Amino acid sequence: MSTLEQQALEYHAAGQRGKIAIEVTKPVGSQADLSLAYSPGVAAPCVAINKDPAKAYEYTAKGNLVGVITNGTAVLGLGDIGALAGKPVMEGKAVLFKKFAGIDAFDIEIDETDPDKLVEIIAALHPTFGGINLEDIKAPKCFTIERKLRERLSIPVFHDDQHGTAIVVGSGFLNALHLTGRDISLVKVVCSGAGAAAMACLDMLVDLGVRRENVYVCDSRGVLTTDRELTEEKRAWAQNTAAKTLSDVIGMADVFLGVSGPGLLKQEDVKRMASQPIVFALANPEPELRPELVLEVAPDAIVATGRSDYPNQINNALCFPYLFRAALDSGATTINQAMKRACVVALAAMARADAQFGKNYIVPTLLDPRLLTGVTPKIAAAAAESGVARKELDPKAYAAQLEALAKTLL
Amino acid sequence: MSTLEQQALEYHAAGQRGKIAIEVTKPVGSQADLSLAYSPGVAAPCVAINKDPAKAYEYTAKGNLVGVITNGTAVLGLGDIGALAGKPVMEGKAVLFKKFAGIDAFDIEIDETDPDKLVEIIAALHPTFGGINLEDIKAPKCFTIERKLRERLSIPVFHDDQHGTAIVVGSGFLNALHLTGRDISLVKVVCSGAGAAAMACLDMLVDLGVRRENVYVCDSRGVLTTDRELTEEKRAWAQNTAAKTLSDVIGMADVFLGVSGPGLLKQEDVKRMASQPIVFALANPEPELRPELVLEVAPDAIVATGRSDYPNQINNALCFPYLFRAALDSGATTINQAMKRACVVALAAMARADAQFGKNYIVPTLLDPRLLTGVTPKIAAAAAESGVARKELDPKAYAAQLEALAKTLL
Repeated sequence: MSTLEQQALEYHAAGQRGKIAIEVTKPVGSQADLSLAYSPGVAAPCVAINKDPAKAYEYTAKGNLVGVITNGTAVLGLGDIGALAGKPVMEGKAVLFKKFAGIDAFDIEIDETDPDKLVEIIAALHPTFGGINLEDIKAPKCFTIERKLRERLSIPVFHDDQHGTAIVVGSGFLNALHLTGRDISLVKVVCSGAGAAAMACLDMLVDLGVRRENVYVCDSRGVLTTDRELTEEKRAWAQNTAAKTLSDVIGMADVFLGVSGPGLLKQEDVKRMASQPIVFALANPEPELRPELVLEVAPDAIVATGRSDYPNQINNALCFPYLFRAALDSGATTINQAMKRACVVALAAMARADAQFGKNYIVPTLLDPRLLTGVTPKIAAAAAESGVARKELDPKAYAAQLEALAKTLL
Repeated sequence: MSTLEQQALEYHAAGQRGKIAIEVTKPVGSQADLSLAYSPGVAAPCVAINKDPAKAYEYTAKGNLVGVITNGTAVLGLGDIGALAGKPVMEGKAVLFKKFAGIDAFDIEIDETDPDKLVEIIAALHPTFGGINLEDIKAPKCFTIERKLRERLSIPVFHDDQHGTAIVVGSGFLNALHLTGRDISLVKVVCSGAGAAAMACLDMLVDLGVRRENVYVCDSRGVLTTDRELTEEKRAWAQNTAAKTLSDVIGMADVFLGVSGPGLLKQEDVKRMASQPIVFALANPEPELRPELVLEVAPDAIVATGRSDYPNQINNALCFPYLFRAALDSGATTINQAMKRACVVALAAMARADAQFGKNYIVPTLLDPRLLTGVTPKIAAAAAESGVARKELDPKAYAAQLEALAKTLL
């Protein structure tokens, strides 16, 4: 066992087991307090909510509460390890929600792999939460699960493995194009991987201006082509080509997007890419090809990974805390494409505004104190403009509110 | 709106809305901390739990975590107000778990009234929690729901409205018999109400020694008799009698157990009971008959209610925090009858050990600091003796552990 693994086990087992606990936020020291918190006083907010469901946001924790929900079918790079074994990751996610955005997130592990049943279960939990962060649910089932839940529920539902990755990749991608002076409509992208994150990243790139015909996608069997039998999601990316392997399509590619596994990009492939290649090698912890090996054959490459020990870490935590913060604060009924795009643009702009901006700094770092106050209002504004916000936020007052929150988090 | 109602609304809306929040229990200030709490370090506990599910109790919060789960069909005395409107009560329950026993409880409100579907949903949540407290689910569906969940899950499942009430009633009942010198096998009980709590109380009284033939139960249509069409649960209490009303059966009753509604016991009824009558008037907030009106016609009566402003408050919070504390600490796979009985006896003994013991002090009070350290070890011992504990607790070490916990709660 590595030192990191040993340290991680000790960290989780030390003191109170796990990483989160419940905190009581109101005084409960006396019988009088208890008669307000519980029977008989508690009947008053119950009656008020029964009359007007919106009052749940006033009298309960719902409005600051996100459910981090998984069935454990695609946990980290570990795969289908089951709901229970996914719990440390979900608790960790709750930690990030709290630390980065002051959001109370509670992890729910569901022992159910049937997508329809899973939808029924999660949908029934809607009164509990103000928003739902789906996590580590395997593709392609995750696509249907998220879509059905978004249709059924009037609280935000967001599968972070798809959209969180896509948003941060989108930001880094815009900045990498900017640094290399590329025209987005001409960029050729080769993607290794066709799972949930890959599909969402590609959707985002197309949304930002990449042309679908310039995108080649490889799954474990090779290039997605029109003569293969494919799932509905993969079929959208099939090309009418005789190319079979990544090696067949990587020539002159501007961008490699790896959301697959270690070793799936070779130095030979990088050599054949366009000059100043852009390489997102996001397999984690071991990327498709290590940055130093990319740079060995293409010194002018821009390389991003999922790792904290290299520059340009593509980490979902750069977006999901602020997306939910903005959604909850604006009373958004959903997290829509306008909000996601606003997040992409805000993250990219924040990196550009930094003196360090350059090929080793295309996205902000995780602990950048500007994130909460800089990114969140842009997303909230997009929610308002796109008509999904139920609350009007005064920009100045909201900025002050976020400043005050940021101080409590540091 | 009453002052209490107004105060309760203000209490719930002040500062952070609601009553509970998520607390991060581990350091997360640095990138190094985050790499233990989340990716890449978090993979180690995931792998460990995948190999050995019991490790979830070591590396996650599961072992101190109780789900307070409702569908909002029988909230307080308010009835079927729906899952969302039940949220303030469930949060309040979480507050009590934390305050009285240091248990992290999270409230889950489920929008589902079909009992089979509700069972499927709750059962699927089992990896999330170390125990499940069902709350405010309407009878008779609650009986089946609890039974099925207990059969399916290997974590404790406990419907507090049934068993919590039954345990505290059982304690007060034993002490009231003691004070009035009655023989339990001869005691005649008349019960008003045939809901979840009533049925569980009667089961408990019979378990303690009351003879089933000495029990008369009235629902909203009158005495449960063998010539009526009754649910399975009610049929168990049907008597072969011509009596129709409570008034027909109350004569010479030793004990009145009211788990029904205000006004359902009359002074006339009390007058006709045996001398030194025992009256549990538990309708809340307004009892079947106010204590002062009982005492007006039977000055030697022992009267208990659900209210904090009269002596002898029958409050579930006297037992559920300690039952779950003991169950979690002993790794009990269930909360069985032996554990419940141990709780009844321990609570009764604790009241008797107090100098105030007497007709106005038949059960301990809610804020009695002896409860956690006094009651919990007895329940844990019962779990071990009845073979449902997975962990062996050293009595001295466990007593010290509870003492230490008690200090953090005060």
